[in-house]
Formats: sequence, structure tokens, C-alpha cells
Amino acid sequence: MPNSFGHLFRITTWGESHGPGIGVVIDGCPPLLPITAEEIQAELDRRRPGQSDITTPRKEADVVEILSGVYEGKTTGTPIGLFVRNTDQRSSAYNEMKAAFRPSHADFTYQTKFGVRDPNGGGRSSARETIGRVAAGAFARKILALAHGIETRAYVTRIHDISMPAVTSATAFPSLAEVEASAVRCPDPATAAAMIARIKDVRSHGDSVGGVIECRIRNVPVGLGEPVFDRLEADLAKAMLSLPATKGFEIGSGFEGTLQKGSEHNDLFETRDGRVRTITNRSGGVQGGISNGEEIVFRVGFKPTATILQPQQTVDLEGNATELMGKGRHDPCVVPRAVVIVEAMAALVLLDHAMRQSAQNRTFEFPTE
Amino acid sequence: MPNSFGHLFRITTWGESHGPGIGVVIDGCPPLLPITAEEIQAELDRRRPGQSDITTPRKEADVVEILSGVYEGKTTGTPIGLFVRNTDQRSSAYNEMKAAFRPSHADFTYQTKFGVRDPNGGGRSSARETIGRVAAGAFARKILALAHGIETRAYVTRIHDISMPAVTSATAFPSLAEVEASAVRCPDPATAAAMIARIKDVRSHGDSVGGVIECRIRNVPVGLGEPVFDRLEADLAKAMLSLPATKGFEIGSGFEGTLQKGSEHNDLFETRDGRVRTITNRSGGVQGGISNGEEIVFRVGFKPTATILQPQQTVDLEGNATELMGKGRHDPCVVPRAVVIVEAMAALVLLDHAMRQSAQNRTFEFPTE
Amino acid sequence: MPNSFGHLFRITTWGESHGPGIGVVIDGCPPLLPITAEEIQAELDRRRPGQSDITTPRKEADVVEILSGVYEGKTTGTPIGLFVRNTDQRSSAYNEMKAAFRPSHADFTYQTKFGVRDPNGGGRSSARETIGRVAAGAFARKILALAHGIETRAYVTRIHDISMPAVTSATAFPSLAEVEASAVRCPDPATAAAMIARIKDVRSHGDSVGGVIECRIRNVPVGLGEPVFDRLEADLAKAMLSLPATKGFEIGSGFEGTLQKGSEHNDLFETRDGRVRTITNRSGGVQGGISNGEEIVFRVGFKPTATILQPQQTVDLEGNATELMGKGRHDPCVVPRAVVIVEAMAALVLLDHAMRQSAQNRTFEFPTE
Amino acid sequence: MPNSFGHLFRITTWGESHGPGIGVVIDGCPPLLPITAEEIQAELDRRRPGQSDITTPRKEADVVEILSGVYEGKTTGTPIGLFVRNTDQRSSAYNEMKAAFRPSHADFTYQTKFGVRDPNGGGRSSARETIGRVAAGAFARKILALAHGIETRAYVTRIHDISMPAVTSATAFPSLAEVEASAVRCPDPATAAAMIARIKDVRSHGDSVGGVIECRIRNVPVGLGEPVFDRLEADLAKAMLSLPATKGFEIGSGFEGTLQKGSEHNDLFETRDGRVRTITNRSGGVQGGISNGEEIVFRVGFKPTATILQPQQTVDLEGNATELMGKGRHDPCVVPRAVVIVEAMAALVLLDHAMRQSAQNRTFEFPTE
Repeated sequence: MPNSFGHLFRITTWGESHGPGIGVVIDGCPPLLPITAEEIQAELDRRRPGQSDITTPRKEADVVEILSGVYEGKTTGTPIGLFVRNTDQRSSAYNEMKAAFRPSHADFTYQTKFGVRDPNGGGRSSARETIGRVAAGAFARKILALAHGIETRAYVTRIHDISMPAVTSATAFPSLAEVEASAVRCPDPATAAAMIARIKDVRSHGDSVGGVIECRIRNVPVGLGEPVFDRLEADLAKAMLSLPATKGFEIGSGFEGTLQKGSEHNDLFETRDGRVRTITNRSGGVQGGISNGEEIVFRVGFKPTATILQPQQTVDLEGNATELMGKGRHDPCVVPRAVVIVEAMAALVLLDHAMRQSAQNRTFEFPTE
Repeated sequence: MPNSFGHLFRITTWGESHGPGIGVVIDGCPPLLPITAEEIQAELDRRRPGQSDITTPRKEADVVEILSGVYEGKTTGTPIGLFVRNTDQRSSAYNEMKAAFRPSHADFTYQTKFGVRDPNGGGRSSARETIGRVAAGAFARKILALAHGIETRAYVTRIHDISMPAVTSATAFPSLAEVEASAVRCPDPATAAAMIARIKDVRSHGDSVGGVIECRIRNVPVGLGEPVFDRLEADLAKAMLSLPATKGFEIGSGFEGTLQKGSEHNDLFETRDGRVRTITNRSGGVQGGISNGEEIVFRVGFKPTATILQPQQTVDLEGNATELMGKGRHDPCVVPRAVVIVEAMAALVLLDHAMRQSAQNRTFEFPTE
Repeated sequence: MPNSFGHLFRITTWGESHGPGIGVVIDGCPPLLPITAEEIQAELDRRRPGQSDITTPRKEADVVEILSGVYEGKTTGTPIGLFVRNTDQRSSAYNEMKAAFRPSHADFTYQTKFGVRDPNGGGRSSARETIGRVAAGAFARKILALAHGIETRAYVTRIHDISMPAVTSATAFPSLAEVEASAVRCPDPATAAAMIARIKDVRSHGDSVGGVIECRIRNVPVGLGEPVFDRLEADLAKAMLSLPATKGFEIGSGFEGTLQKGSEHNDLFETRDGRVRTITNRSGGVQGGISNGEEIVFRVGFKPTATILQPQQTVDLEGNATELMGKGRHDPCVVPRAVVIVEAMAALVLLDHAMRQSAQNRTFEFPTE
Repeated sequence: MPNSFGHLFRITTWGESHGPGIGVVIDGCPPLLPITAEEIQAELDRRRPGQSDITTPRKEADVVEILSGVYEGKTTGTPIGLFVRNTDQRSSAYNEMKAAFRPSHADFTYQTKFGVRDPNGGGRSSARETIGRVAAGAFARKILALAHGIETRAYVTRIHDISMPAVTSATAFPSLAEVEASAVRCPDPATAAAMIARIKDVRSHGDSVGGVIECRIRNVPVGLGEPVFDRLEADLAKAMLSLPATKGFEIGSGFEGTLQKGSEHNDLFETRDGRVRTITNRSGGVQGGISNGEEIVFRVGFKPTATILQPQQTVDLEGNATELMGKGRHDPCVVPRAVVIVEAMAALVLLDHAMRQSAQNRTFEFPTE
């Protein structure tokens, strides 16, 4: 269903930007996972508005409450209800927007599809919905870490046209500290500084920019992913394109890889450290839809924030031409805050596939003849 | 489940490359659709091997049989069973491959995940599986066409580094005849000729290339797509990344769009021909996850064919280093044949969302007060 | 997933007996349905404890809050979050039960399955979970009523061995007022009085009783139900057996019908009032898994309440023999309060099938030739 | 979707009574299960028509072909395609039925729901559809047996008003040989003889009878079943009510249990043979929706066969009154052949839940603190 994601570790999100709050239900979480509200909060704090001087000044503490499914500090196997109350709601900023469709927003499509919409702050189409994803992602990430040492790391590789140097084998897998060292979440300090300057510059003109996030996942066992439709990269692609403002997804060599010949692109096999490895990783850690034990590497493209503080041509609900001037408090660039959301979605996909793999391939062992 | 796709118009594919054949079950097809085996066959003929001098010489007629769900030329609302018998199976070509993992193929991951695999021609991981998708796509495309005049057109925009000029408003929506005019399915004749020459050239060196397919869908009503997880672009991304050899997906402005500022990228609204339209289409026909009535435009990147007729380093099932020389009959470039598969998957996604939209928003009309 | 029900009108419930509260998310609700908290509350009030002198004295107002999905009194097509806060939690009554398994409760199976359980008041296995079902059912029932005049009426036909006279064509379809006239929700006043006396009598001995609920649904259009697995009666059976304390389900003639010959049991067709009708209704309104336009009639058997105020033999968590004396405040008979839950689940099944029918059979109309 | 069943071990059936054949796809079957066509055939032979002198004389060998998913005698983890060709199709017998609705059949509802139907032998509504269930059930039963020694045994306890003595602890769990000893599949020889005589008697009058099947499952581990909606008994109820001709389901004490007081009905716990057991089994092996390690015991009621060789009042497609005389070759009682179908469905439910249990509760073990 549209507001649920995952088959076995399944989350359902609900709530609107300017309603009472944002919630998520996690169904299928393994029991006995030790978890605290603080651990969830730590992830939410990386997502919340007002965290730095390049994000929206909207102030929301985004405090999470655990309403069910955890008993004496451990999950019980029953559904986990999480809730984050909305506190800083200035819906008056949206009065004008009730009467006209904001360009490149969801106003027009929601209104036409449903015949109605909550216009305050985008209602359900607001990126505040991703709070639920991040909160659920905290559970998924902890399970992956405890069970296999699986680590998910996303970071900003490009803002507008400012790119960081490619991550190579020498620099691979940035640490969390390296990512969090800058407000823009780019692990290369020089690039990060340039990115922050660019964001501030475009903001000063009432404009916005987008960029690219790369995500790497390490210590993934061989065998996650279910051909033919539920390939690991297919589910990752869906997860990423389900995020607001995303325009593209690529894995491994991606679109660049289409410029190579097969003889250049193929990942040759060798035995290394006692197990089968590929020498290169153009596959991005997935072959035939199934993880091959190498690092999973993918990238997600985010468009520039649609809300800009400039007058724009549009139409009102009756279709009459009008002009709309962006108001409210908005991020000039959503990419830095999206890093934690990309990690959360990636973890949700990985965990779901790990559970599916257990169900099909580890439930029964048949006698060998 | 891994071998099913779609919620309301749901297909389930089965079968292996060198087994008895390939099948698909369509569940949820609306009744009373007039359909013939010939209509399905026409789509399969665009996919089948041996169709031109730049595809694999494997000869398979790929004749479809309708085994259920159609009575006196019309669908009955019950599940439709379709079957294509395999005929040209030279599994001896794969003998060597039973003992070693082909680089950048699914051999290693299938073997490790399942503990077993059918090594003949890739077994389930063979692209022959897509026969079922194309056959089911014929139903979806006919329904979309009959119901709304919705048309889905895919075509090759790049092979290796040879690109066709961008489709502009002057040249938009290539006709089927333009696409089918060349074996490479690029609607620009000059580019097509260069692409074909490149494919023949790399083949002569036992090598392979990849490329990019663009797909456009027109006459889409406003309102298809289900936020937040089942956004139209999310489901399209999953559909495309579920195809063999795909490495990337982008919609509308895609990764290029991330280089623009918000003031450059936003699609302004106007009223045109009596309805709300965007002046530009960087959104690619989708806003907030919901179709906005503009052309849906997306692109898919395909890596170069993994099978090349050159010796490659790899390991055997025990992990010992060995060398593998590609044999069998393979496409030096899968992109031209993938065009019809992209169209089929796009149609499956659109139809499924059209049915979901009917279920939620057209089932009940409540009295206005 | 285990805590979700329905395909297109999908509910997800969460929460435990003695935690912060009980919630439900409704995903897929059609937009523009006018609904108020009062309408939902009215249904919850029929379910809540302490409503009469034959139910548990536990006092819970069970006040519902609408947290999302409704804007200016109408549904918006986005997920609806509902929450009922727990208020009267005396978990001390359960201290003893933490250490031993209550007979015919879920203590032992939850503990063994999950390795952990919230022992307060049954935690997730408490019937308080059904609050979410009833709240969601209020939406389903209103939609069915507005759209088709479909009415769902459940009532108690038997308590212990006290049965009301069979509902016949003369007395068919009890009114809501007739059902609500007695605390036991049996529309036959004389039987109701005897039932109430019986419940009070067994309670005075610290014992409990069960019974049977019959449910009738009228004005159902022909065509709801999806063969072969999602037959209407199959989904109703699942819905009913998913309720706590249920032991059986039968539709139409039910188990009694197996005592008839085909010549006695078949429902002959006639044209009545301009449409095809059956003369009798042993089918219970469903043929071949699809509604036939007659009243849907089914019955559900509920076992006696497991908690009794008598000492019972059991074992503790280590398997040592012990004795447990029921405490806490419990219904001596859950059947009267279950009436509204049966109605809610029936409405959820009907609405989901109505939406599925719209999706498959009303989305597209093909030109007749 | 309507023609699929199960979440992780998922079957999709297709095919009509008088079309080319009946098929099933199994998705999610664990790899490396050794299985032969003969093992599947053995189950189909218990279901096939013409097996004894109390079934339909329709002669169908019902030979199964394995079309995919099995390689060198073992499952590969990919979808398993099975096909049974229809051979004895005398659709002329149904000519009359094309024009009129058979009483208590699915003709009217299919025609109205879909606007079309395949009238030959009931088309999709024919019980031939259950071939796919039985074939898939053979896989499920073998897995359950190999993995845990779980055994599923169904048998006929009543035909019309002739009942066998209740199975008690002394006689519990009839052997397969005892069940198969009589054509009617009642393990009590004296009762079986009376049942067979009754069936022959009603057949001689062109009439039909129904009855009751009981099913017991032993060696079930504690912990299968997913509260709250996917309780084990809820999924069993759905599975059984999805079978043609079923009118009721009850588990454990069933409807009779509603006549007891709590003090009589509760299953007290004791430690027996080193594990927690219940002294009685009125729960039928399930508590709180989860298996408790006792035998699972449930019963299913089947109505008398709708097709009788007597003239019956009905209407034609235009609603005009007419009379229909049953023709074709039919079972005077479907219950004996349904035994193997009940076993198959029960095994499918159990296996699916075993896989779900593995996914949630055995995937990860968290460090104890």
C-alpha cells in the first residue's frame, strides 16, 4: 500500500506537515533488540530542521515518543508505534499557497488526484513525512550492525556543480565523523567549504540548488536480493525515488559505465582473503540482483529545492494566471539533510532482504544424499 | 514475491533459459478486453533473438500460446496463462561455464545464495525471462491505448558514446515506425547508422557495448501515482532496475537537472488548451509522485553485455583461479532488443496505477454538501 | 503483514493493553468522505468496557483522536492516524501473571515465540487491540452506507445454551435499535433477559460463558469477492477468526447445511422485482466466492472468557507446576461487546472487495464490437 | 491477488476446467529440496476423478509436468511451474448450461461480476482449479515432513448425517493407510461402509450429499502464527473457506465449545515429557493465534454437491424462468476427494508461517546483556 514500505520489516508512515504530528508503525521487527529513544533521536537530530546555518530556520525539536512494541528496553516482536509531535507550525505562511499551485510542487497533482488537499506546508507531501522513515531506519541500522556489522554510509558528493574527488580504494568508506564534520555532509573538507559557500550564495539570491548523494554499504553478506523483480538494486532504486526531490538513481558504474566496453567493464573474479572477490567493483556490489559481498555503492540525484524566494508564474485553483512569491522557511538545498534519509531507506531495504533470505534459504536444510 | 510484479494488474513469471519454456500468469486483467495471440506475438517478435544482424544469432521463434483466461477472443477476468516453449537450446555451449563463474554474470551470486543453480544459459538469470514481461506488457499496452489513448514509446538514444540529438518539442514523441526503421531502434537515421557500425565493430573484436534508452508516455491523465512510497517514478525506477544489465534510471531532468538552480529548474504553470499545463517539463511528467498530465519521460542506462568472446580471469566453484572464454551466441549489445521490454514494464506500471487510482478515487463519490 | 488487514482499504493496528494507548492507521481511504470524531466515538462507545452491568467494570472512556488524514471534516486520501489513549491501567493486578502462564491465554505462546512479552494485561494479545478495528470500521461502514446503502448488522443469537428464535423472513434484519435495546445485544427481548440472567449467574460463581454472533449485510451489489483464494466468505472467515476468542465461522446454511441433500439445499433462481434472485438463501449471499445480491449471513462462535476468578492449575516460566487465581477486571462474557467488532471487520472486508471490484471491472470499458 | 495464496511460500494457480489445462506457479520454495514428479503425482492421484465407484466417472489421468524450478531432482529456489493438461473434455454436456444459471453454482455471479464467463464445465469456477493447490501442497508437505516431521492428516468424519465416533486420545491421529483404506476416506471401517452406501443411495436418486472433514497436524513447533490478523487459525479458516463448496470452519472445541463454561473449557498447563503441555486440547493447538505445540485440530463443512440430476427451476441469461436438468459427470459427494485438498491447503498455511517465523525470529540473535 502507498504508505507502507517493505515486505517483512514493514513500515507504515502517516501524518502531515502542520497536523498534530508525524508517525510510523514498524511491523515485523525482530524481538529482543535493545533500543532506546535516545538512539532513535540521534538519527532524527541529523535530519531535523535548524541544525545548521545552511538549513531552514524552522525550529523543531522533533522529539520521538515510543508508543508501543518496546518493553523494558527491548523490542517484543509486536508493532512499534513511534510519534513525533509537530510544534513549530506557522501555517499562515501558506495562506497564499492555498489559492495557487506552487511550481514544481505537489499542490496541483494532489488537488487533482484527490479533489482535496491540506495546503498547510505541503500537508502530506511535505518532506516532514521522512521523519518516520528515519526513525524506523534507526531500528534497521542497529539490527544490521549487531547482526553482521553491516554499515551504511551516505555523504554528499556534489552540490550544484561542485564535486568532491571520487572515493577510491585509498579513501573508501568515509567515517561517520568525516561526514558529520561539515554541515553539508561532504567528507572532503575543501569541497565541503566550497559547497557551503555556494549554498549560502544562492540563498542570498532567494534561489536554491540540488546535488548528488553517494551511499556505500559494507560487510554485506553474499546472497541478499531476490530475482527477478525484487533485485536488490531494483528495491534500492524504488526506495530512493520514493524520496522527495529525487530525479535519478544509479548503482556501481551507473550511467558512466554505459560508456565502457564489456572488456573494460566486467568485474573479474579472484580468490582474496579466502573468499571469492571481484577485482573491481563496477557492479556496485550486486550481480544478477543479488549482493556479491563487495561494497554496495549507489548514487541519488536531487533536484534544486522547488520553493524559491522569487516571484514565479503559476495558476490558481480555477486555472487563472497569477504570480506566487515563495514564503515560509525552507532549505536552499535539501541534500545535506537527505543524507540520513538515504541511509535509513538503504538500511530498510537491506534488512528486509536479509529477512527474506532467512525465510527462504535458512529455514530448512535438507539432508544431503 | 520475487517473481511477481504489480499490485492489481499482477504478473508472475517463471521458466529458465534452457528448460521447457518461459511462462507468465497475469492476475487481475480486466475482463472483456479483446486480444489475440497475434497481438502478443507482434510484441514478442520485437524482442526475439535473431531479428537482425546486430543481435544474437540464436534462432527462437518464441511462439506464444494462450493457455487460460481468454474465451472467444476476450479476457474473462480470470488468470491468463501464457507460455513460450524454448526450442533452440544448445546447452553444450555452457559446459565450461558450469565449472567457473562468468565475470559480471549472476553465476556466483545464484550459486552462493541458493546453493545450487541451473547453469544452462544462465537458467533463471537469463534475459529470456523477460519474454513473460513482454507478453504481459502487450495486454497492458492495449488496455492503456483503448482506455485513454495512452502511448508508450521507448527508443535508443545512446550506444556506447554515440548519442542522438535530444528530442525537443519539435521532434517529440517518435513514431513507432521511426523507431522500428533501424535495427538499433534509434529514431534518428544518421545516428542509427553510426550506432549499428559501432556494434558491428565491437562484435568483430569479441567485445560488447551498452547504452541508454529513453521512454516517453503520452496522454497520461493527471493523478496516477500513490505517494508516499509508491510514487510513479519510484515504481518506474524499480521496474527498470529489475531488468537485466541496467545500471541507472533518471526521470525528467535527471542527473543533469541537479546542475540547475531552482529558478532555472522549476516548471511554471499556465493554462493551455483549457487545462493546467507546465511550460517546461523538467519534472518528467510527475510531481509529488503523481502524474501531472505532461509527457512522462525517463531514461535507463544499460551496461555492456557481460558475455564477451575474449578470455577472462575468474575462479571455479572451489575458488581456484582459472580462465573463461565466452562461448554461446550472444548479443554484442542488448539495448536495441531491450526497447520493447522497457515499454512493457512502463505499461505495466502505468496500468497498475490506473487501476489503483480507480479503486481509491473513483469507487465512491460522496454527496457534496 | 501480521498487523495489517485489507488490500486496498488497509488498516494497521498497534499498541498494547497497558502502554500509552492503541492506534490504527488507515491507508487507502477514498478522499472527500465527510467524517467526524463523534461518528467514530459512537462506534467505540459500543465497544468500550464498563458500558453495562454485564461487562468488565474497567472504566475507559476510549476517546479517539484523529491525528492525520482528515482536513476540514473530510478525508484527504492520505493515511488516517487514529489514537486512543489508555487511561485506566492497573497493571499491579497482573503481577502474579508475569510469573505464570494463564490457561487458554496467549501468555505461553507469545513468550515462546518471541522470547519476551509485555505481561501487563495481555499486552498486545489483549482485546483492547480491537479498538483500532472498530475505529477503522466506522470509516468503512460510513462509506458503504453512503455509496450503496449497504448495512451491516450483528447481534447475539446465543449465550451459553440460550438461543434466540431463528431470524426468518418475517423478522429479518433486526434494526440497530432492537439490537441495542438490551445490554447483551440480542434483538429478541425475552431471550435477551434470559441471557443477561445467565451471564450474571456465571459471574457470581467466578465463571464465564461464550456464545454465537450472527451478522447480516444487506444491499450488497452482485459481484463482490475475488475467486479463487480471495472469495468473499474466505476473507470474512479470516476476518472473524482473527478476533480474540473465536472458534468457528459458518456462512449461510453452515454446518447444518451439510445435513441436507443437494435437492433440499440448492437455492433456485427466479426473477423478482426485475432482477435475478434466489428463492432461498442457503448460500448466505455468496456463490462461487462472489456476492449474489442476497443478504450475506454468517455466524461466529466465541469461546467462554479464559480469565475466570477461580484457582487454576498451570506452570510458571520455568515449567514448574503452580496455581493461578484470576484477578483483574474482566468480562464474564465477551460476546455482547464483540458485536460491534464483528460489524467493523465485516465492513472492512466488504469495502476492500468493493474497491477491488472497481479496480478490475470498472476501470476500463472496452468498445463493444 | 485473487489467484495467489501465501506470503513467503506463494502459489498462483491458473487454468480452466475445459481449456488446455491447469497450472500453478510456486514462488519462494526453499532450494535443494529433493522432489520428483512421482511424489507430486501421488497426491494428484488421491484427488483425481474416477478413482473409485463413488466419484465422478470423468476419466482424467491428471499427469503433472514440472516445467521449471527443479534441476537434477532438486529445487533451485526459482519459481516452480507445474502443468496438468486437461484431456477428457466433453463440453457438449454444458451446452444447455450456457444459456441458464445452474442453481447454487457460480454461473450467475461470474457472469454478473465479469460480464462474461467460460461456461464449459464451470470454467475457472470448476473444482479442477484445486489441482494446482494439491500439486503445490506436495512440496509443502514434503518440506514440513523433512524439516520437523510435521504431519498433516485429514479424513471424513461425517457424510450427510452419518458420523464416525469422535477421535479420542486412544484413537488419535489416524494413519494414512487407515484413511485410504476406504473410498470415502473415513478411518472408521464400519462408518465408512455406511457412508459409501449413503452416497450410492442418493446418487441413485440423482441427488447429492455433503459432510465434514477433520484435519489434524502433529509435531508442530510452538510459535507458528502471526498475531493479530494473521493468526494461524485465521489463515487456516481463509484457506478452507477458499475451497469450493465449503460452508464452515471450526478449530478445537469449535461451535460446541461455546456451550461450555470457562471453567470447563480452559486448557490447563502442565509439564509433560520435559516441556510445557496442555492437559486438554480444546484450543485445537492454537492460543492467541500462535501454535502451542499440541495437535492442531480443525473441521470443515462441505455442502451437498450443487449439480444434481434432477430438473430444477432457474432463469436464463435474460432472466426468464426456465428449467435445468443436471448433466455431465459429477461427484454425488465431493467430500472424499476434498480430503487431500484440505491437507494441501493446511500444509501451505503451516509452511508459510514457518518461513515467516524464521524471518522474524531466527534471522537475528541479539547479544544478551
